[in-house]
Amino acid sequence: MNGAEALLRTLVDGGVEVLFTNPGTTELHLVGALESVPELHGVLALFEGVVSGAADGYARIAGKPAATLLHLGPGLAYGLTNLHNSRRANSPVVNIVGDHATFHTAFDPPLNSDIAALAGWLRGPVRRPEDAAGAGPDAAAALAAVLEPPGHIATVIMPADVSWSDGGTAGAPVRSRPTPTVEQETITQVAETLQSGETTALVIGGPALREAGLLAAGRIAAATGARVFQELYSNRVERGAGLPAFSRLGFYPDQVLDQLHGARHVVVAGTKAPVSLFAYPDQPSLLVPEGAQTHVLAEVGQDAVAALIRLADLVAPDAAAPVTDPHRPALPTGALTVENWADVIAALLPERAIIIDESVSSGTALAAATAGAPRHDVLMQTGGAMGDGLPLAVGAAVAAPDRPVVALVADGCVMYTATALWTQVRERLNITNVILNNHGYAILRQEWGYFSKQPGSANPDTNPLFDLTNPQIDFVGLANAFGMPATRATTAEQLAEQFSAALNQPGPHLIDATIPPAA
Amino acid sequence: MNGAEALLRTLVDGGVEVLFTNPGTTELHLVGALESVPELHGVLALFEGVVSGAADGYARIAGKPAATLLHLGPGLAYGLTNLHNSRRANSPVVNIVGDHATFHTAFDPPLNSDIAALAGWLRGPVRRPEDAAGAGPDAAAALAAVLEPPGHIATVIMPADVSWSDGGTAGAPVRSRPTPTVEQETITQVAETLQSGETTALVIGGPALREAGLLAAGRIAAATGARVFQELYSNRVERGAGLPAFSRLGFYPDQVLDQLHGARHVVVAGTKAPVSLFAYPDQPSLLVPEGAQTHVLAEVGQDAVAALIRLADLVAPDAAAPVTDPHRPALPTGALTVENWADVIAALLPERAIIIDESVSSGTALAAATAGAPRHDVLMQTGGAMGDGLPLAVGAAVAAPDRPVVALVADGCVMYTATALWTQVRERLNITNVILNNHGYAILRQEWGYFSKQPGSANPDTNPLFDLTNPQIDFVGLANAFGMPATRATTAEQLAEQFSAALNQPGPHLIDATIPPAA
Repeated sequence: MNGAEALLRTLVDGGVEVLFTNPGTTELHLVGALESVPELHGVLALFEGVVSGAADGYARIAGKPAATLLHLGPGLAYGLTNLHNSRRANSPVVNIVGDHATFHTAFDPPLNSDIAALAGWLRGPVRRPEDAAGAGPDAAAALAAVLEPPGHIATVIMPADVSWSDGGTAGAPVRSRPTPTVEQETITQVAETLQSGETTALVIGGPALREAGLLAAGRIAAATGARVFQELYSNRVERGAGLPAFSRLGFYPDQVLDQLHGARHVVVAGTKAPVSLFAYPDQPSLLVPEGAQTHVLAEVGQDAVAALIRLADLVAPDAAAPVTDPHRPALPTGALTVENWADVIAALLPERAIIIDESVSSGTALAAATAGAPRHDVLMQTGGAMGDGLPLAVGAAVAAPDRPVVALVADGCVMYTATALWTQVRERLNITNVILNNHGYAILRQEWGYFSKQPGSANPDTNPLFDLTNPQIDFVGLANAFGMPATRATTAEQLAEQFSAALNQPGPHLIDATIPPAA
Repeated sequence: MNGAEALLRTLVDGGVEVLFTNPGTTELHLVGALESVPELHGVLALFEGVVSGAADGYARIAGKPAATLLHLGPGLAYGLTNLHNSRRANSPVVNIVGDHATFHTAFDPPLNSDIAALAGWLRGPVRRPEDAAGAGPDAAAALAAVLEPPGHIATVIMPADVSWSDGGTAGAPVRSRPTPTVEQETITQVAETLQSGETTALVIGGPALREAGLLAAGRIAAATGARVFQELYSNRVERGAGLPAFSRLGFYPDQVLDQLHGARHVVVAGTKAPVSLFAYPDQPSLLVPEGAQTHVLAEVGQDAVAALIRLADLVAPDAAAPVTDPHRPALPTGALTVENWADVIAALLPERAIIIDESVSSGTALAAATAGAPRHDVLMQTGGAMGDGLPLAVGAAVAAPDRPVVALVADGCVMYTATALWTQVRERLNITNVILNNHGYAILRQEWGYFSKQPGSANPDTNPLFDLTNPQIDFVGLANAFGMPATRATTAEQLAEQFSAALNQPGPHLIDATIPPAA
C-alpha cells in the first residue's frame, strides 16, 4: 500500500471513524486512499474552521479520536482557531496536513510554509514521515499522543510523495491510555479540609461535569456544606433533571469573587484554579479570594471523577446527592427578550438533546432555565475563540445521529463559520440552529462599560465597530442559500412554534431569533 | 497619551490611513484610541480572513502600508492564510494583535497562546512593547520593517495594559526606503547574453509587470528576439490596450517547459526562476529547461524596473515596445461556457478597472480576452491560498474608491471569506462580484487527472469530496443575505446585461455566473 493508505489504515485501526476535510492537490492521494479504507467516513467542509470545529465536537460527543485532513500551511492556518478551542477542550484530534513532495519544498513554491511552526502552536507533537514506510508509525505515534489523558492535538505532515509512494504498512494499533489516578494522600488531605468546619468551595471541571462526577460532588456538598461550582468553560457538561445543578462561575472577576466570598479553601478537581477570562485594571487575574488556600484534588489529566467518588466515600458515605426535579418554565409570551428565549428552549427541549452554547452575552438566562429540563449535554467554546458553535454542532451530530442537536449561536459568531450550515445540509444532520440575533457585538459594548476607565469617550452603543446593522444580516436568507429551511422569530410564541417544528422534522433547520441587546 | 494612541499615532505619521479590523475585548483601548486619531479610518470585517485579505488588496493598490487590528492568537490565526498570500505578494502590512495584559498571561487564561510563534510563521519581525513608552517605538520599527523593499509583514503584539496605560509617545516618523539598484556588471552580463544570438527567455514579475517594466521588456524583446513571459502569480499586473501583452507562465510543469522550450538562457527580473506550483511524480520542480542557464537580472526586492530600463537602453536604444491595439471581443451569445464568460467581461470592462482574479480553473480564457481592453490592473492570489478574492476586492476598492473593481471569484473560493460581501455593502464599495460557479472543486478534478498514476481508481467527477452540488449554493441568496443586490446569469446575454447594470450603479453587486465545468 502507499503511504496515504498506510496512514489512514493506522488511524482506523486505532478507532478513528470520521475524517473531516477540505482537501487540495497535495491531499489527493489521501482522498484516493479513502476508497481503500471504507471504514473511514469523509465529511467535507468548505472552510477549515468548520473542519476543525467539527472534529472537536465529534471527539467530545463520540468519546473517540477525531481526524482532520487539511491543505498545507494555509489550510491548517484557517483551521487553527477552532483547534485552539479544541486544545482547550482536551479533545483528541489528529491533524493530517498535506505538504509538497519532499523534493519540492527546497524550491519554496508559493504554497510552501513552515507547517511545523503552525502546528507547534497547538502544543502537541508534530510528525513528518520522510517516506511511505514512516507514514504508519508516525500516524500511530500521533494517535497515541492525542489519546494521552486528558486528550491532545497532534499533527502529521504528509509530503505528497510520501502519500503517493508505495512501501507503507499500517502502524501498530493504538489504544487509549488509562487516566492517572490521584494519590490517596491527596484525597485524605482534601477530606480533612472539608471536615475542618472551615468554609470550602469546590470547583469542578472537565470530566467531573458528567453524571458520576456531579453526583459525587453533590454527595460531598450534602455531607460537608461545601459549595460546588462549575468551571466557566467546559468541553461537555451533563445537565437536567435527575442531576445536581451547580452554579457556573461568572465571566467577570467580581462575579467570581462574590461567588467564592468567604471561602477559606478552594478545592479544584478536573480544572485549574479560577482565572479571569480577560484582565481589567486594578482587578486580580487569579480569582481565589484573598487568604483562601487552593487545594488541587485532581489536576487536568488526572482521574477527577474517581477522585471525587473516593472523596465522597470518605466524607459522605451515607449522603445522597441533591438532584434537580424535573421542571420546565412555562412557555413565555410576547416579544422575544434576552431572557425569555431561553425559557422557550427549556420548555421544549427534547430528551437527550445536545446543546451547543455559543450564545455569548445573550445566554445568561440559559442555565437556570434548562436546569430541570430532560437530561442533556452542553458543549461550549472552551478557548474563548468565536466561530465554534455551528461546527461543533456538525461534529456532535455526526457522532450522535440519533440525538437532537440544538445550536444556540450569537449572530456575531455565525459569521466566522457560516458554511457549517452547508455541511449540516449535506450530511442531513438533525440540528436546530437558533441564532441569537441582537444585531451587534453586544459583548464588546458590555466589556467597554466594564472597564473602570472606559476605553474611549463615546457611548459604545454608537461605536460603529460594534454595530452589525449596517447592513443587517438576513440569517434566514443565509440558511436558505445553503439549502437549509429557515424561519424568523420575533415573539416567544413564534420561537416556540418554529423550534417545535424544526425538532419534529429530520435534517437541519435555522431560526433567526431576533432579540434586543441586553440592557 | 496611552499606549494605544501612541501606536496608532505612529502608524498615521508613517502613512497608514486605514485600519482593517475585527476587534475584541483586548483591543478595546485601541478601538477607543481611534477616536483620538481621526486620520485613521477603521474598516470592520466580521472574519479575520477578510481583514487580512483586504489589507493586502489595499496595500497593492494604494501603494501605501496597510494595518490590521486582530484579537489575540485566535484572531491572528483566522487571518493567517490571507497574510500568507500577502507575504507572497510582498505587501507591506503591519498587524496589531491585542493580547492579554502583561500581568495576566502567566495565568494562562483560555484565550492565551503563543502569538509570537504564529506571527513568526509570516517570516517578518514581531514586536511586543512591555509598557506604553515602548508602543510608539515598536510601531515605528514594525512600520520600517514592512516598508523595507520589496515589502514585508510585521506584527506588534499589544498587551492590553500597554494599550490602556499612560506614558506613550509617538515613534519617529517612518518613510519608505529606496529599492536597492542592480549592479552595472549584472546589467552588462545580461546584455551580452541577450546579444549572443542564443535563444533567451525573459521572465518578469513583481513591479516589472507595471507599465514601465512592461515597456522596457517589450523594447528588449523587439531588439533581441527574447521571448518575454509573465510569472504565474503576481501581486499586481497592468494590462490592456497600449501595453505589451506577454504570455503568462502556465500552471503545469509541461506547459512551462513547452513555453521555455529551446531557451539556452532564462533571465529573471523581479521574480524567481519558475517553479511548479505543485509537484508531480517524475516531473521537475524547477521549470528551467535542461541545459539552460539562469541569469538573475534583478532579485525580488531589487529595482527590477530600473534594471529593465537600463538593460533596454543598452540592447535596444532605438527599439519601441510592441503594444496591444485597443480591441475587444464581440459580445458572445448563448449559454455561458468556461470560455465565453471572459469575452463578456472583456467586451464591457470599464476604463481603469481593477480586476481581482480568483477564477482558478474557470479563468483560462481571461488573459487573452482582456488583452486589448482598456487599461486595467489585475490582482491575484499570490500564495496559492484560496479565499483571497472577495477580501482583495474590499481593500482595492477602499484604496481606489473612484475605480471600478471587478472581482472574478470561483465558487469554491467564495466559501472561505463570504462575509467580505457584508463589508463591501457596509463601505458602499464599487465592486462587481462575478462568481464563476461550476458547482465543484473543478481544479481538484483536473489535478486528479494530471497525475500520471491517478490517486484513486474512481472517476474524479463522481468523488463526493469535489462536489458542491449537494447542496447547491445559492450565491444570489447569499449576497442578498448581506444586503447586496444580486442576479443570476446562465447565458452570455444575461451576463452582459447584468454586468453592465452592476457597473452603472454605485455600490457592490453580485452576479452568479453559472458555467459548466471545464471539459
